[in-house]
Amino acid sequence: MSYPQQKIFGPRIDKKMKQISSQSNDYIKNIRRLKHKKYRDETGRYYIEGIRLIGEALRTDANLVSILHCPDLLTSEFGWHAIKIAEEKGIEIIQVTEDVFQTFSLKEGPQGIAAVGKQNWLNLDEILTPQGLWIVLDNVQDPGNLGTIMRSLDGASGKGIILVGNSTDAFHPTAVRSSTGAIFSLNICKTTEQHLLEWKKNINIAFIGTVCEIATSYKKCDYPENMVLIMGSEQKGLQKEIIDICDELITIPMGGNVDSLNLACAASIVLFEIYDKRIRK
Amino acid sequence: MSYPQQKIFGPRIDKKMKQISSQSNDYIKNIRRLKHKKYRDETGRYYIEGIRLIGEALRTDANLVSILHCPDLLTSEFGWHAIKIAEEKGIEIIQVTEDVFQTFSLKEGPQGIAAVGKQNWLNLDEILTPQGLWIVLDNVQDPGNLGTIMRSLDGASGKGIILVGNSTDAFHPTAVRSSTGAIFSLNICKTTEQHLLEWKKNINIAFIGTVCEIATSYKKCDYPENMVLIMGSEQKGLQKEIIDICDELITIPMGGNVDSLNLACAASIVLFEIYDKRIRK
Repeated sequence: MSYPQQKIFGPRIDKKMKQISSQSNDYIKNIRRLKHKKYRDETGRYYIEGIRLIGEALRTDANLVSILHCPDLLTSEFGWHAIKIAEEKGIEIIQVTEDVFQTFSLKEGPQGIAAVGKQNWLNLDEILTPQGLWIVLDNVQDPGNLGTIMRSLDGASGKGIILVGNSTDAFHPTAVRSSTGAIFSLNICKTTEQHLLEWKKNINIAFIGTVCEIATSYKKCDYPENMVLIMGSEQKGLQKEIIDICDELITIPMGGNVDSLNLACAASIVLFEIYDKRIRK
Repeated sequence: MSYPQQKIFGPRIDKKMKQISSQSNDYIKNIRRLKHKKYRDETGRYYIEGIRLIGEALRTDANLVSILHCPDLLTSEFGWHAIKIAEEKGIEIIQVTEDVFQTFSLKEGPQGIAAVGKQNWLNLDEILTPQGLWIVLDNVQDPGNLGTIMRSLDGASGKGIILVGNSTDAFHPTAVRSSTGAIFSLNICKTTEQHLLEWKKNINIAFIGTVCEIATSYKKCDYPENMVLIMGSEQKGLQKEIIDICDELITIPMGGNVDSLNLACAASIVLFEIYDKRIRK
């Protein structure tokens, strides 16, 4: 998959400017535009908000482009400490007024700190000998589910996530927030169904697909050391082409009246079964 | 806990009226007000939307007060069949125009069918000899998490949910939707911390608390047949008063960088471990 040349996210901020107080400042306009996938794709940037998330980005050395803060809103000492660390790392620090911060903030009761990050995609073809636990999400639609799955995958010591087809964007603000920082440390790929099928032919890793139909219980599967867990979309489950290339199909036996589980919950149940089997080895 | 006398949700619909076309019709105004917890509490009613959810409500004999439908939007045969069944059950059927439907719909691309249900709360004191698997949620904040936990609890053949303190409302439209119908079959209670503590003294059931700190692994716990799984809020976890009355504390061992899991995912991981141990017995 080739990536188009990126638009420049800017303009550069005039260092002499003490504080941005205009809502129509070009940089601020671009921050707001990061809510749109098209603009994120064009610039390769994304939006991060909140003290804990930015603290986690700095701790894990995520590629941050700038930090925006509003002194009237930022009351947390930890938040100010984060700005100091960011400055030492050479990240651009931009001060804005409360009015300006509110125009791009996505939180109720904003904490007065946000950042622009550089999206970090891994090309699937660069993964020649995948190690450990990976997850493929086939046409996942909800960015909250995607972020929550990244959080659980990281908690289960997983390595990375591969988004297939028309999946939602890993750098959607809701996915970033729900990941609680897992997005900064996981490998993230996106690809087509066709490319995934080709990749599978060339590499040596087990594909374990999760289905709602009758299959091996997820409790009884002997998960290999290096493996890809594959989950389908919230509405349609796994598509046939992908089921066909799975080495094994598993399911979560269920009782009650409901006919399925939330996607992130189902993924977490299987991921932590795998994690438990690993730590017990 | 006593419940105040309820306001009447109305007015009664004039049977001769073929279709409601006015957005300011009193019944329609009240439908819109069901978004607010205060009005739900006052009337004991709640809002349900979508074909699958209403189909599930009818299948499980949930207490429905009325069904609203818009012939221009309702294209599904299953939806029309649901209306026929509802009519046979004596549920009031109300036809509205598309404009009117859009004023209360909470869906993008509404399917043209919604309903008003009667909230079905169980008083904790009525549960003298609790059987099976229950869950207590202590100050859970997010209605999406609550609904998703109901869905997983039902899938794990659980019996009911007890909301403690300032938990979000089980009948919040987001909780209802995320439950995918589990809300119609589970027992649902709400109570105070103090009342829960008193209830525990009088009944014979194990309290198993879930914490992030060091505790028994959820994999190693010997879950009793009748038990209450207790989970704290998204931000603060379990409060000390509730930890103190737990018979056992469990935790989910984790790797990676994140310091916790999403509440609904954590609940699902433990619930399905319990469910698996039960079906294997």
